[in-house]
Amino acid sequence: MILVYDTAVERNPKVLKTCRKYLHWTQRSVFQGELTTAQYRALMAALNTTIDPEYDSIVAYTTRSPDMIESTTLGVDLGGPGDIL
Amino acid sequence: MILVYDTAVERNPKVLKTCRKYLHWTQRSVFQGELTTAQYRALMAALNTTIDPEYDSIVAYTTRSPDMIESTTLGVDLGGPGDIL
Repeated sequence: MILVYDTAVERNPKVLKTCRKYLHWTQRSVFQGELTTAQYRALMAALNTTIDPEYDSIVAYTTRSPDMIESTTLGVDLGGPGDIL
Repeated sequence: MILVYDTAVERNPKVLKTCRKYLHWTQRSVFQGELTTAQYRALMAALNTTIDPEYDSIVAYTTRSPDMIESTTLGVDLGGPGDIL
């Protein structure tokens, strides 16, 4: 899945913390990862209680298999393994 | 395709303008849309000349068909048709 968030500054730390539990950071406001259905539901439920539904927005894009989606990076690969070194 | 960008403030207007030509805005730093291969190549080429590859990052996620990807929104649907009304 790919998760993008557009949340108020004051809620960003909690959204980030919740996303980091399940996904890896790709770039500013973007996470991605492979989750089981149970993990996906737990993540979405946790985020649902964190955000202000009148103001914040989170979009989750899911596919059944990572083979179905191809990703191409222009410029810096911010979330790549290079950042771990 | 889904396109996410993390670019320097001074280059954001040009990146936004290029993305808007081909895609529709989803939320802060996220665009999505259906492109032909030729349109995809033109967009990526235009972005490649716009960004600073040492600093900026753009990730494009593509699937062969929109049916392969499901999107779920929590909170506000910022890029939805509601914004046009």
